[in-house]
Formats: sequence, C-alpha cells, structure tokens
Amino acid sequence: KINPDRLWDSLMEMAQIGPGIAGGNNRQTLTDEDAEGRALFQSWCEAAGCTMGLDQMGNMFARREGTDPDALPVYVGSHLDTQPTGGKYDGVLGVLGGLEILRTMNDLNIQTKHPVVVTNFTNEEGTRYAPAMLSSGVFAGIHSQDWAYAREDAEGKSFGDELKRIGWRGEEEVGARKMHAFFELHIEQGPILEAEGKDIGVVTHGQGLSWTQVTVTGKDSHTGSTPMPMRKNAGLGMARILDKVDEIAWSHAPHAVGAAGHIDVYPNSRNVIPGKVVFTVDFRSPELSVIEDMEARLRVEGQKVADELGLGIEFEKVGGFDPVAFDEGCVTAVRNAAERLGYSHMNLISGAGHDACWINGVAPTAMVMCPCVDGLSHNEAEEITKEWAMAGADVLLHAVVETAEI
Amino acid sequence: KINPDRLWDSLMEMAQIGPGIAGGNNRQTLTDEDAEGRALFQSWCEAAGCTMGLDQMGNMFARREGTDPDALPVYVGSHLDTQPTGGKYDGVLGVLGGLEILRTMNDLNIQTKHPVVVTNFTNEEGTRYAPAMLSSGVFAGIHSQDWAYAREDAEGKSFGDELKRIGWRGEEEVGARKMHAFFELHIEQGPILEAEGKDIGVVTHGQGLSWTQVTVTGKDSHTGSTPMPMRKNAGLGMARILDKVDEIAWSHAPHAVGAAGHIDVYPNSRNVIPGKVVFTVDFRSPELSVIEDMEARLRVEGQKVADELGLGIEFEKVGGFDPVAFDEGCVTAVRNAAERLGYSHMNLISGAGHDACWINGVAPTAMVMCPCVDGLSHNEAEEITKEWAMAGADVLLHAVVETAEI
Ligand SMILES: NC(=O)NCCC(=O)O
Ligand SMILES: NC(=O)NCCC(=O)O
Repeated sequence: KINPDRLWDSLMEMAQIGPGIAGGNNRQTLTDEDAEGRALFQSWCEAAGCTMGLDQMGNMFARREGTDPDALPVYVGSHLDTQPTGGKYDGVLGVLGGLEILRTMNDLNIQTKHPVVVTNFTNEEGTRYAPAMLSSGVFAGIHSQDWAYAREDAEGKSFGDELKRIGWRGEEEVGARKMHAFFELHIEQGPILEAEGKDIGVVTHGQGLSWTQVTVTGKDSHTGSTPMPMRKNAGLGMARILDKVDEIAWSHAPHAVGAAGHIDVYPNSRNVIPGKVVFTVDFRSPELSVIEDMEARLRVEGQKVADELGLGIEFEKVGGFDPVAFDEGCVTAVRNAAERLGYSHMNLISGAGHDACWINGVAPTAMVMCPCVDGLSHNEAEEITKEWAMAGADVLLHAVVETAEI
Repeated sequence: KINPDRLWDSLMEMAQIGPGIAGGNNRQTLTDEDAEGRALFQSWCEAAGCTMGLDQMGNMFARREGTDPDALPVYVGSHLDTQPTGGKYDGVLGVLGGLEILRTMNDLNIQTKHPVVVTNFTNEEGTRYAPAMLSSGVFAGIHSQDWAYAREDAEGKSFGDELKRIGWRGEEEVGARKMHAFFELHIEQGPILEAEGKDIGVVTHGQGLSWTQVTVTGKDSHTGSTPMPMRKNAGLGMARILDKVDEIAWSHAPHAVGAAGHIDVYPNSRNVIPGKVVFTVDFRSPELSVIEDMEARLRVEGQKVADELGLGIEFEKVGGFDPVAFDEGCVTAVRNAAERLGYSHMNLISGAGHDACWINGVAPTAMVMCPCVDGLSHNEAEEITKEWAMAGADVLLHAVVETAEI
C-alpha cells in the first residue's frame, strides 16, 4: 500500500507553483510556472533514484530500473499542466501518484522484472495550444512534430519557441520508446463515481471528441447609428449558433455533450457591432457516428444562421479523437487490483480526453479513476479526499506491479 | 471659406499617430498615443496664436481672443480619442475642423466679439472607460469627477491614474467655464446623408442611449465529463439573451437599435463550460419611452433565460442619456449657414451620442454633420471625401462667426 500522507504532501507542494486566484492552479503549459513544476518533479524523481529522460516535445520520463535489462518498461503518468483556472489534481494526481508508487516500491524493496517509468506529458490541457493531448499525440504518431511546434497561442507565440524558452526541449526522438504497457491514474472529472458511492472507476472506454473552430464574419460598425436592416452582426450569429449547439447535443443526450468554452469577439467594444467572432465548439460522445452527426449538423445549422444574417462563416477542425476501447488485459489488471485491495469499483467511460487515449494506439493501456467532489473539474474548486487519492494510487501500484512482474 | 487642403493634411497627419492595422486608427483614450495626439493638437493651436487651457478631466481648450473682454466664448470641438479599430474622422474632424476655422479667421483677419474656443473632450468613445462622453458629462455636471476618476479599464487601471500618467491632468476646475454657445461638427456615422445625396445634416435631435452591463454566472466545469443536465452554462445564457436583445430592438424598428459589442467569457478555455460571461447591451432610440421599454424587457427576458438555465444574472446600468433636442437658435444658425453657402442639407437625428448631447444641458448647442461612405463608422475603413469635410467645416465657420458676432 502506498503512503497517502506523502502523496498528499507532494500534491499540496506542487500546488504552490502557479497558484490560481481561488484555491486552484494556473500552471498552463510552457509557462515559467510549468518549468518550475517540472523542476520540482525532476528533483523528487532523482531523490527516488530515477534517471530522467526528456524528449523533443518536452515529455519527461523518470525511470526506475527493472531486473531484466531486455524487458520493455511499464509506463505510468499523466500531465502537470493545468487549465487557466484549474484544479490541483487534474493530471497532477496521475504524475505524482506514479511517483508515489516508485517511492513505495523503494520503501518495500520491490524489484520488478520490467523497469517502471513515470511520465509527464506536455500540454495535455489544450487551452494555450489546441489540440489537447498534443504531445502524447505526437508520441503516438497522430501529429507530426513540426505541426505541433507551429501551434500558436492567442498571442502568436509558437509551441516550439516557448518549449525552448522555458528550457525543456530535450534531444530524445519523440515516440522512439516502446512500452510494455501504460497506466494512467486520473480524477473522474464527472459525477458518476461519487453518486454511485464507488472508490474506483475501471475505465473501459473513452468518449471521442471533436473541436470545430468557427469564425463568423460580419462588418464592425456603429451600434448607435447603423440601422437594424444594415447590420452584419457577427455576435448575433455566434449567439444563434451556440443555441443550436446546445440543441444538437441534447438531441443525443445522454450519449453526447456539447458547448463552446472559448469565444473571442472583435473588436469587443461596447459601441461597435461585432465584425468577427471566433469560437470553438466541443462535441463529445462515446459513439463515433454521433460525433460525426453533431459535427455535420453544426456546419449545416451554422451556415443557415450565417445566410439568414448575411454573415460569412468558416469551420476549421482544430482537435479530435475517436472513441477509444482500452486494452482488455490492462483493464483486467486494474479491476483485479481493486478487487484484491477491497475497494468498491465499477466500469466507466471516460468523459474527458486523456494522454492514455493516444498511448492506447501504440501500447496496451488502461486507466484508473477516482471520484472528485460534485464531479467538478476545470474549476479551481476541484476537490478530492486523501482517501480517494490513496485508493487510486493503491490500485495503480498493484496493477503496475502485476504487469511489471516481480 | 476654409482651406480644404490644409484641413485634410492635418487630418492625415493626426492619423499617423496611433495607426490601426487596416488603415484606420487605434488611439484610445489615455494611452501614450492619445498623449501624442494631444501634443500635436496643442502645437498647432499655439502656432495659430491660441492659448491652451486644460481642466482636471484633461479636456483641452484652445482660445482665440474676441474683441469684447466680457463676452462669453463660442465653443466648438469634439474628441481626438478613437475606438480600438476606429476611423480617422470620428471626432477628429470636429476638433481639427474647429482648428481650421480659427486658422481661416486668422487668414481673413476676422475679429469676433466673442472669443472662439476649440475643445478636445477626453474619452468620448467609452471603449476603454464606460460610459462614453465621460468628460463632457463631468463638465455638464452629469457625473462627479471622483466617480469618473474611479472608472476602471479591463486591466483595472483607473481613469484618474491613467490621466495623470500620460501627463494631461490639468488644474482647472471642470465645468467652471461658461459658454455662449457650443457647435460640434461630426461625421454622420450612418447612411442617411449619402443616400439622400445631401452635403450637410442639420442635427435637430440626438437619440438616447442605455448601456446595461449583464453578468451571467454559471459554474465553470469540464465540457467533456459534465453531463448535459448538470451544466450551468453561462455562455448559453449569454447566447439566448443576445437573441432576445435583437428581437426587442427589431420590435421597435425603425425607431430603435440594439446589440452587444462587448462580450467577455470566463475562463475562455475550449474545454471549460463558461462559468461567467459579462457583456454590455446597447439600446438606442429617439424616444425615451422606447428606451425604457427595451431596458425593462431586457431585465425580464434575461431573468427568464437565467431561471431556465439555473444561472445567476445581474444587470448594471453603465451608461445612458436621454434623447436630446438641440437649441433652436443654434440649429437655425447651422441651417442658415448651409443655405447661405449653397450646400444641400436636411434635418437629422443623430444616431450616435456626442459631447454636444451633454453640453446641450449647460449651453445652447447644435451639431453639423457631413456624410461618410456607406454610413460606416467604428471601423478602420471609415471614409469621407475632402469635399464633405470642406462643406462641414464651411458651415461650422459660418455658424460660429454669426454666433460670435463680427
Ligand atoms: N482530462 C482533461 O481534462 N483533458 C483535457 C482534454 C479534454 O478536454 O478532455
Ligand atoms: N460618436 C460616437 O461614436 N460616440 C461614441 C458614443 C456612442 O456610442 O454613440
């Protein structure tokens, strides 16, 4: 069993870096705070006797040796970056939970045949640079590294330049490592485990996602002196499309969700009719056909709204992944661990995207989830209990040790 | 008659300061560019033999002496600040047109009984600091100076601090000056004069305005893992309210307009359901009862939307002025001047707010308008012809000279 106090202390110490304004964190990817968090993680890994690898996407790999020099490592991990108003556990629990199992293995003198490697993937959140899970995506061969380097934030700073600036661009070729298996521990970010009173979610599937960036173009002009019939109000177009997005998602509920989280209005002045609005629609479902249907209807309905209002409209897919079925062997290892440890558990479909979803394409993968209060995540008030964190890390430890073989 | 080439050259020289990104200007109030524009205007006024006054709101007053030391001055002017993506003429034509009539009076050796003063009012646009026409409002006793100083921009910088920082906070008490009359030359910012083929708009009235800042509060949470029924999506609330705003304005068209130009979404991240949206609704009408009706319906409909979606909502009035009827004597002076000079003209109701609307409360006031291409304003592509500018400044000259008495 892991040491819950040590795990908790590390979570709280990491949360000191890039504090938010309401008790959570703002440690967005490739900021100075991200660099500081990485350095702290590295110092802890080295203190635990690991060697640190770093690839050209800034993905970090802390390795604890195994007894068989030819055996592929078992990987665990998640991400240390956060939302601009994010919580202390989203991603972080998976990385520091991974570290905690290494520390526990050291304490108990457990030698595994396969090495165990704890990973921190760069830019999982996708807030500063779309899409989410960018670096695990490059690792899994989904995106090219050049394309990833060219991603720009809202200020036009590129991913490649910022990675170099913060000093965490490594030499190692991305995706060159082969994995025996991959396990990711993560908070649920949804309400199901808490509502069902279960300690552990055994994640069998992940729902798919589609991000469409919509640009509505009107004509910026004076809000007071432009008569109603002469207006080309891009803000009104955005408003009507958002209402449709909600309608489309509801039409497939409970097997779909949809909303726009990001909306930029230009020139954003009280007395100027918006000439342009850029927003990103996020549709998700465990069923690919549903995602495809929602995406298609967004384009049709969006075009209709634009035509009605005399606006221009463009759609660009800026992120997406298909629904995922995790590896049966790894899923079984997670379920067996929960069973053996006496934690209550249930099967889950992940509502969020995770690095595990991409890694699943290149290695046998599964996820362990623990509850979070009120299902709340991507909010500074995100909260979990020490007991939930302990249950998750215990299950991770047992699944990993079983897979890495003693 | 004024010198159209000299007026045009000054307009173009001023437009060099704070250039926009598409041929217009970004010389927002109390920025370094605003300070630079003020210094250029002051140097031109001093070269024309004027003395410059500066009050505690940064309002500038360039005075050309009259022959009667006891006569109250005739004031002309407008504003040099622009929208973030504004044009080269909105406001600027009224200030530099005022300067041009002084230069012409110098050329022609015209001595008036009343002094003539050219004014630049601070923060007419209201983009950086709501409300619009802030400093003419303090001058006219509508707002207190302390309240104006405490206004904050989006970054939390106060009006008072920024005015001091750019070095244009004067000593003179605001509103202490008494005016014999006030005339403002401005581009129409709407399509009527051009459509009717008229050179000059004789502005008899100004429509009233109401700015309501709406804050919709939901709960920021994960766009992927929060089930549809558990969402409190402030972005959806904003969208539905914007649709209502359009419907409400149309219900009174052509005697009303309405839209939201300013919309801020928090935390504005692609995979976070908006927890808060702040936006400003701008309603206008020449009829006070219509404005009051629209304002009231916004509150009712907004509350309904919020209740439907389980959102919080707050309304704050951040700007407003009642419809205005300009002074009959001054309006007649403008009409007579156009008639005498042979310019085609028509009566107009101003669709936009102007400093003249506030000054009208403390001095006999009127406005002269000239057309602008396609009625387009608050857009970098705002355009006028040299002939239109000349007609406007000619009429201003004649109305002022008649009122200031030779
Ligand atoms: N786990 C998580 O919040 N990942 C970010 C990608 C997503 O929006 O699902
Ligand atoms: N003239 C002008 O654009 N003034 C700004 C105030 C308003 O929005 O009407």
